[in-house]
Amino acid sequence: MAVSLSAASKGESLAQVDTPALILDLDVFQRNCDRLEQALRGRAIQLRPHAKSHKCPEIAKRQIARGAVGICCQKVSEAQVFADAGINDILISNEVVGDKKIARLCELAKSIHVSVCVDHLENASAINAAALAAGVVIPVLIGVEVGSHRCGVAPGEPTLALAHAIVQMPGLRFQGLQAYHGPAQHMRTQEERLTAIGRAIELTKSTRDLLASHGIHCTTIAGAGTGSFLIEAASDLYTELQVGSYIFMDADYARNDWQTSGMPRFEHSLFVWTSVMSVAGDSHVVVDAGLKASSVDSGMPVVADYPGAKFVKASDEHGVLAVDPKQMSPLPLGTKLKLIPGHCDPTVNLYNELIVIQNNAVVDIWPIAARGALL
Amino acid sequence: MAVSLSAASKGESLAQVDTPALILDLDVFQRNCDRLEQALRGRAIQLRPHAKSHKCPEIAKRQIARGAVGICCQKVSEAQVFADAGINDILISNEVVGDKKIARLCELAKSIHVSVCVDHLENASAINAAALAAGVVIPVLIGVEVGSHRCGVAPGEPTLALAHAIVQMPGLRFQGLQAYHGPAQHMRTQEERLTAIGRAIELTKSTRDLLASHGIHCTTIAGAGTGSFLIEAASDLYTELQVGSYIFMDADYARNDWQTSGMPRFEHSLFVWTSVMSVAGDSHVVVDAGLKASSVDSGMPVVADYPGAKFVKASDEHGVLAVDPKQMSPLPLGTKLKLIPGHCDPTVNLYNELIVIQNNAVVDIWPIAARGALL
Repeated sequence: MAVSLSAASKGESLAQVDTPALILDLDVFQRNCDRLEQALRGRAIQLRPHAKSHKCPEIAKRQIARGAVGICCQKVSEAQVFADAGINDILISNEVVGDKKIARLCELAKSIHVSVCVDHLENASAINAAALAAGVVIPVLIGVEVGSHRCGVAPGEPTLALAHAIVQMPGLRFQGLQAYHGPAQHMRTQEERLTAIGRAIELTKSTRDLLASHGIHCTTIAGAGTGSFLIEAASDLYTELQVGSYIFMDADYARNDWQTSGMPRFEHSLFVWTSVMSVAGDSHVVVDAGLKASSVDSGMPVVADYPGAKFVKASDEHGVLAVDPKQMSPLPLGTKLKLIPGHCDPTVNLYNELIVIQNNAVVDIWPIAARGALL
Repeated sequence: MAVSLSAASKGESLAQVDTPALILDLDVFQRNCDRLEQALRGRAIQLRPHAKSHKCPEIAKRQIARGAVGICCQKVSEAQVFADAGINDILISNEVVGDKKIARLCELAKSIHVSVCVDHLENASAINAAALAAGVVIPVLIGVEVGSHRCGVAPGEPTLALAHAIVQMPGLRFQGLQAYHGPAQHMRTQEERLTAIGRAIELTKSTRDLLASHGIHCTTIAGAGTGSFLIEAASDLYTELQVGSYIFMDADYARNDWQTSGMPRFEHSLFVWTSVMSVAGDSHVVVDAGLKASSVDSGMPVVADYPGAKFVKASDEHGVLAVDPKQMSPLPLGTKLKLIPGHCDPTVNLYNELIVIQNNAVVDIWPIAARGALL
């Protein structure tokens, strides 16, 4: 394809950036990083941010420069992109199933430190066999089901049985437990989150102790997300936190009750920059960002800066804003405005580049190099 | 980025295709094209399929080889990709607002026949000025609001006023009306669709006649989608049909009542190919296709071939399938299966390539070259 378009060039003003585009407010991004570090100050816990949220090597490098021990990825292909960009310590916090994927995992293990999660004996055996054939040893965490109701072997005896098998596989090195509670991240009240993560901690701790009583020691207990990480950090159990969304803070996370939780109040740094493209309707205007510009799985995007405007409907290339004439003047044709995406991860995955803004000017353009890395 | 991965190579079996991947059943695709042509046989109406659904030049070329007069796009950047691939007649069935976009539109008009929709005098004036500066004449359709409640000027007098202005602009050539009724496409019963499109036809016809009575003649009346096209085709009003999804037939379109409508019953040709990656849960299995592999804006994907399996939840990289043990045996780890996407357009936009399958073998890999062309 010869056509290659960018929404902006370095040095342009924000107003000049074409739409729709994904923009990152660099100062806010940095403040969010600061807040996370302040919140964890004094805790003996490592940070391994999740790169599935940003898919952007420039961000991963900044996270590592600030002290992260490495990153998490969800896919081998994603890890390949980050390895190619110089990131050399990656946990694939997910199961890797299938011959082609396992072969790529083992190939990657020849050049960087890459670890992986398993929740099934058959999968552990397949990775072991491929690792032996490739002449590598793959560190593994057992994915334990602590409330996500998704992947993960049951805690207690089933985890012990799998651990027993893994420690006998010469192509694998047992490293510990992956104990992530996904739904807890989006529970709205701190009470709900405390209950859910409290239960996850209890299950993980008893499983860790059970393994220890059989001579199998966990060096890593990994998990946590932006909604719950302070709870895991205070547990004296988790050794690594896998927060991802804190850098961006999407509209759905903002619906959590942050006031009562003691959690840092991260600010929105990520926006879909869009233009009013039709004002022909009586009671609405249309913007040029729809389903292909902002994922709606966690609700519609929220219009920033205009409290009287509400994003009410998304179709493929259009967003319909209801505008309350009592709260604001009509938005003229061509007005550019910011949308706060409902869910950052799948929204980032729609774009090739992140337009980095500081003081209303484009200071950088960062490739979202792992966009579409699904395999 | 040095990493460049494909889910498949030509000649592989379907079973060897890595997951998640977007696969196209070539025979079904061709049957769907046949069915559309049969349904329109004897009608003096042109076909201008919408490329926003497939974003794939290989498909556009096949549509044109079968008699389509050109294609529709929604974005100038999309049109640039198709023009670059040799498509030389494109209607941007959407408003193009903003200096950068209009400049690219006029540049494109130097090499191919590209027309555009307008619904506002200010936008018409901006395109006229840019066209004059670039030394081109841009054919325009007036976007008329006939029930989409999105873009489009009101029918009747407001359309006439805009047409009067356009015919006096030397950089524009007035061509007719764009009268698309989006919501009607997904109305479930033929009765609802007949009522909605009947009203759209009435509004469009009276507006066309009003313009004619003022000496402004429409050579093109464009619109229609996969859910309603036979109604527009029978109207003796529309001159061009803009169907898009008929080639793929997604799960949402399949929920329309096709039996009573006389519409061709298009078959599903587009699938997300996915693997069972975790069977550790008691009552569910997890596949490796989530929000980044299948858009859920029009509902969850539907599991093909396994009536006892239901896709109940999507997270970023995971899909949870509830499996009814009364209807089927457990799905073993690594089982590969097909998902029918809820909505084809935003799902296609997640992938770089379409894996083309015939007789369970990969016969081609078609780049989705306009994926992410948002500008």
